[in-house]
Amino acid sequence: MKSNPRAAIGVFDSGIGGLTVVHELMMRLPNEEIVYLGDTARLPYGTKSPETVLRFLRENLAFLKRKNVKMIVVACNTASSVALPKLLEEEKIPLVGVLLPGARAAAQATRTKRVGVIGTTATIRSGAYEDALWKLEPAIKIWSRACPLFVPLVEEGWHGDEITYMTAKRYLDPMADFDADALVLGCTHYPLIRTIISRVVGDKVKLVDSAHETAAEVQRILEKSGLRSDHDRPGGITVYVTDIPYLFKEVGERFLGRPMERVERVDLEAVLVNGSGT
Amino acid sequence: MKSNPRAAIGVFDSGIGGLTVVHELMMRLPNEEIVYLGDTARLPYGTKSPETVLRFLRENLAFLKRKNVKMIVVACNTASSVALPKLLEEEKIPLVGVLLPGARAAAQATRTKRVGVIGTTATIRSGAYEDALWKLEPAIKIWSRACPLFVPLVEEGWHGDEITYMTAKRYLDPMADFDADALVLGCTHYPLIRTIISRVVGDKVKLVDSAHETAAEVQRILEKSGLRSDHDRPGGITVYVTDIPYLFKEVGERFLGRPMERVERVDLEAVLVNGSGT
Repeated sequence: MKSNPRAAIGVFDSGIGGLTVVHELMMRLPNEEIVYLGDTARLPYGTKSPETVLRFLRENLAFLKRKNVKMIVVACNTASSVALPKLLEEEKIPLVGVLLPGARAAAQATRTKRVGVIGTTATIRSGAYEDALWKLEPAIKIWSRACPLFVPLVEEGWHGDEITYMTAKRYLDPMADFDADALVLGCTHYPLIRTIISRVVGDKVKLVDSAHETAAEVQRILEKSGLRSDHDRPGGITVYVTDIPYLFKEVGERFLGRPMERVERVDLEAVLVNGSGT
Repeated sequence: MKSNPRAAIGVFDSGIGGLTVVHELMMRLPNEEIVYLGDTARLPYGTKSPETVLRFLRENLAFLKRKNVKMIVVACNTASSVALPKLLEEEKIPLVGVLLPGARAAAQATRTKRVGVIGTTATIRSGAYEDALWKLEPAIKIWSRACPLFVPLVEEGWHGDEITYMTAKRYLDPMADFDADALVLGCTHYPLIRTIISRVVGDKVKLVDSAHETAAEVQRILEKSGLRSDHDRPGGITVYVTDIPYLFKEVGERFLGRPMERVERVDLEAVLVNGSGT
């Protein structure tokens, strides 16, 4: 069955970070409707095992498909890294993760063929960015590091802060000897502290923002498959979360760069088992 | 039905932090068996809503009861704060949280009747320590602050670190004007950075370690109810987790202060619905 071009784009993340991808989508494709699901009751995914992340991701995609979306963006680096390849085999709906667009942009950006990758523990341990980069360009050399403090620092709102700067130095100074000329921000939270990251690694290192690259990829997929919305009015966004954490709206609006009108809590189990629960 | 004194003590936490309580229990009650459950697939609880934490806690206690434990320690400040009062009404098994023992020790420790409380966002927002302290001593004045970076800093192992010191100063310097003489470490991770916390607040402020106080309370309950084990050999510990995250054993042994022989992953849903899954 062919999807309706006026159907929404589904965007999934374990939490709030995927709203940076939504922000990029809204800039690039302003007339598309967006349905966002944040699995905030079970976040973070970054410290969990691949099996657990795969199980969670399956449930999240099932929810978005019930919302009749025309494609799904997995705006979560951990899920894109450790679970998406398996789901690409199972699913018929167009699916795009944040990993491949980021890897592709990094492979194009580097002249020295030396690339840095930072992300959550699970993303880095999975080696998924390495695999993707090597497939694109076997000669690429990669330096990678998990930066588990960046997410809570961003969520504290300490973006221009000395503590964030020192933490970034701790994580990223070891990259100096490696002579990379591109660094993949392999977590949707990281673009919010890109100024500090850039100050630490220097302006010769191009920062690759997966959110930005993913929005470009979504546009390509929609156009290729004739699924661009023909609406001439601005699209809206509906936000579902599995739990409404403290400060969700406040922090979310920082990510989204605009007010969020409505956030709805959803009980995934109830929806998937009984067909109710929103 | 009267419990068997040789049955294990069940200890629950959302993750790894409750092992500091286990450490204290093993020091104080070396011949008791311990069954530990860490709900690592769904941690952290500290940023989730009270309703979600209550649902999770019910499931966790159901699992421990199936292991025939004689009592249950809720070694999670968030769950103790926002969900335990409700469960005390429902449950027949002796239940003790980390909150009341900590509050009681603080009320006894303070001379100035001015107490500081730090913990996760959910613990602090719940106001549960305030309520408990005021019930014990209505004249007490309380300064409180959520310190969300402390948990990831401890899990990075940056215990004696400059970044941790600066973060502690950021969180705790505002307490200086308040003139507290006791500070409740309202999160099981915090005792691992007590040296830094003490350096920041000064040695006139007594640090109240809920883990330590809770172990004392467990001993009182067991003795009062005739449930102390009469085994004369050292008890063991069985650790169940709902997910085995990276570094669980490594970080866990730091909390426990000794090697962990075996960590078993358990699927709560499977156990509770079908009676299998371990």
